[in-house]
Amino acid sequence: MPEFNQISEASLAYFKSILGEERVLVGEQISPDFGRDELTFKPVMPEAVLQVETEEEIRKIVLEANAQLYPLTVRGQGTGLVGGAVPIRGGILLDMSKMDSILFLDEDNLTLSVEPGVLLQDVTAYVEARGYFYPPDPGEKTASIGGNIATNAGGMRAVKYGVTRDYIRGLRAITPTGQPLQVGGNIVKNSSGYALKDLLIGSEGTLAIITQATLRLLPLPKESISMLAPFSSLNQAMDCVATILKSGSQPVALEFLERQTILDTENFLGKKFPHSTSPAYLLLSFDGNSKEHVDQEFAQAAEICLSQGALDAFIIDTEERKSTVWDARGAFLEAIKASTDELDECDVVVPRPQIAEFMAFAHSLEEKYQMPIRGFGHAGDGNLHVYVLRDGIDEKTWQSKRKNIMEELYQKAFEFKGQVSGEHGIGFEKKEYLPLLAGPEAVELMRGIKAVFDPNGILNPGKIF
Amino acid sequence: MPEFNQISEASLAYFKSILGEERVLVGEQISPDFGRDELTFKPVMPEAVLQVETEEEIRKIVLEANAQLYPLTVRGQGTGLVGGAVPIRGGILLDMSKMDSILFLDEDNLTLSVEPGVLLQDVTAYVEARGYFYPPDPGEKTASIGGNIATNAGGMRAVKYGVTRDYIRGLRAITPTGQPLQVGGNIVKNSSGYALKDLLIGSEGTLAIITQATLRLLPLPKESISMLAPFSSLNQAMDCVATILKSGSQPVALEFLERQTILDTENFLGKKFPHSTSPAYLLLSFDGNSKEHVDQEFAQAAEICLSQGALDAFIIDTEERKSTVWDARGAFLEAIKASTDELDECDVVVPRPQIAEFMAFAHSLEEKYQMPIRGFGHAGDGNLHVYVLRDGIDEKTWQSKRKNIMEELYQKAFEFKGQVSGEHGIGFEKKEYLPLLAGPEAVELMRGIKAVFDPNGILNPGKIF
Repeated sequence: MPEFNQISEASLAYFKSILGEERVLVGEQISPDFGRDELTFKPVMPEAVLQVETEEEIRKIVLEANAQLYPLTVRGQGTGLVGGAVPIRGGILLDMSKMDSILFLDEDNLTLSVEPGVLLQDVTAYVEARGYFYPPDPGEKTASIGGNIATNAGGMRAVKYGVTRDYIRGLRAITPTGQPLQVGGNIVKNSSGYALKDLLIGSEGTLAIITQATLRLLPLPKESISMLAPFSSLNQAMDCVATILKSGSQPVALEFLERQTILDTENFLGKKFPHSTSPAYLLLSFDGNSKEHVDQEFAQAAEICLSQGALDAFIIDTEERKSTVWDARGAFLEAIKASTDELDECDVVVPRPQIAEFMAFAHSLEEKYQMPIRGFGHAGDGNLHVYVLRDGIDEKTWQSKRKNIMEELYQKAFEFKGQVSGEHGIGFEKKEYLPLLAGPEAVELMRGIKAVFDPNGILNPGKIF
Repeated sequence: MPEFNQISEASLAYFKSILGEERVLVGEQISPDFGRDELTFKPVMPEAVLQVETEEEIRKIVLEANAQLYPLTVRGQGTGLVGGAVPIRGGILLDMSKMDSILFLDEDNLTLSVEPGVLLQDVTAYVEARGYFYPPDPGEKTASIGGNIATNAGGMRAVKYGVTRDYIRGLRAITPTGQPLQVGGNIVKNSSGYALKDLLIGSEGTLAIITQATLRLLPLPKESISMLAPFSSLNQAMDCVATILKSGSQPVALEFLERQTILDTENFLGKKFPHSTSPAYLLLSFDGNSKEHVDQEFAQAAEICLSQGALDAFIIDTEERKSTVWDARGAFLEAIKASTDELDECDVVVPRPQIAEFMAFAHSLEEKYQMPIRGFGHAGDGNLHVYVLRDGIDEKTWQSKRKNIMEELYQKAFEFKGQVSGEHGIGFEKKEYLPLLAGPEAVELMRGIKAVFDPNGILNPGKIF
């Protein structure tokens, strides 16, 4: 690990000369929120929070940090789940939340240029009001777009539309040596040298600081419809998923739900889910430009489900029912969090046919370790979210059981040729598992790439590897 | 540039011990084809062609080449257009054409695992016979899949379906230091460290040798329809493209054609195109699972075209008419090549709204330099192919005019914030233009990444930068 320096008084004065007094926070001025994310239970505080507003401010700060060897961690909204934005080495926390402008809607290119601090929900609202569609749909709508890019955030529409990576046309960034970088652009195809844009996407703030993004938009589909199908087992549900995807049907979302998670969410929201007596469910949605098209997609999927053992196939076609069901699905993580005092999560991705077996294995650990385990996930793309709940046990037992369960889960994912993270990233919470699943050769290459971008290792140190 | 050694007799004997005599070609045994690609007019010969059949053979050869400092260039079918597979530093040419097995169709994951030497047309035929669809559709169907991955080949279906990058789930590779590498896998989402898979895709054989690829498949759409619309100017045609894409319509392909290219192709094929008296055309296709759906897409696009000045909108719905039109479109490059003695090409990508202006600029150079220029391209994604024809002029004038025209074209693409290559790559023919359009900072980072993978610079030296 690199040796860093504490921020000097001279540097602080320099930062204040760039940003003004009010955008340089130190000591008591720093809220504990800046020291954690959504799953960090003990904050780790930075020495200074610098609230930047322009690329030029960032460039000057980075040059100083690189010259003085200050660790520098970039933070959007801190909604991550693996500590990616937690300043674990102290130093500078670069708060991007004031860089939240929507810059330019380019209707001829179907793109939207934004600053990285703009919230996903604000992008969505802005483009949908104008008849456009930004498909990536991670559960956390108050995340920043910069954070979504840093983790290559996925979400529920990945089955039909892909993930954040697929909607980034171009990025502007500042490298850790203070170089401005433009990758991609307002263009569709590109085979011009190495895929630096793709390398920055998902690099969790360790390679460069994103200062602007050009997002790809689609025309907003005119119609949508959802379906909820209860099953007597997850196995049966997942067999249906394979048949649906092979049939030529194009679900937008294809989620699996387990009964206990639905019950937790009913408790959390104080609202009933349309059905909650079956052990497993599939929740699907379809979109398109004509009602006939989505009705036909629904009918075909319903027929497949019913012929393969679904107990029913509920149509969800009113705005009210849609929001009941999808708001509940969106609240799963919050509901699980609210049901216990502390938790750890596993965001593995496995080949789709292994989902049911992986979940069965996860539940077998409930009994083995006598610990509650909850799960839900993206049946259409093999990305599972499994949570171990502390439920008030003492610290030592919790740490030991938590670690054992995580190790067993990642070992199983390794056996299934899966990867550590489908959409949340590695951060510092999951880095010990990366060499097992990605392979030590790959991790060595990543370290080498990191050194090319960041020879002094100042940017988000201690993350990913 | 690294200092390389000539292949020693001892190394040749070692290669023969690995491959057997018959798969080690030297001297007169090497066909001039191994020294060129589709647009190289003077072959540059390797010292030895090694025809590999397994990953283990590759690993041993690479270890020897890295230890002895032999340049090593990987070749699929040599169908590239920028010299990417030409062994410009001599040394070893690794001929991948014998690694052409289709390994495993995984119908549950909708993936196909293949060796890199399998031809695109063989992948297409294999999966379509089984009801599946591999969407990437580069013009050159006899290219190898490995070559497609090396250049991130695009093609005509990119508007709806994306490019090769979007259909690669996982890769196996051997790095230039002989390390085996597995990136991605039989999985859909992945946010587990840096995007090494994306970095290998499009790296033109400079970072690692691909030994296996897992391709993503879709169910084969059941219906398709095409449309040909003549316009009195390319400007008018391109205005329609913007309206069509904003309308929510989802064309699979959206090509523009110019009259002269159609005439060249009629001559080349000895076959009439359905219409050839207008200066500009749009050629569109739509697909889907129902006839109503594709008919509706056609009707909507036809209405837009006719209301915005198209002279007609021909439906192309029989298999015979489809193949007439698309075979002609697929033969454009061959037809242009056949019409002259030598040519140079420019594969820029520009923002879509700048296509008409770029083509007008390209044609203005015909007059300025008194040289014939032909063009066609992907109207839906801003990727243009512009060709300068030698037509028998002397070598000195040709080299001077060719260079001036290319410089002017890339300068214009730079002004439009485009990139050097949309789908053919940089190879060695286009590397002088990369710093201008990608930026010198980006090229420096690429050089750094190259050194991480290939400290001795043995793999495909002299390419990209």
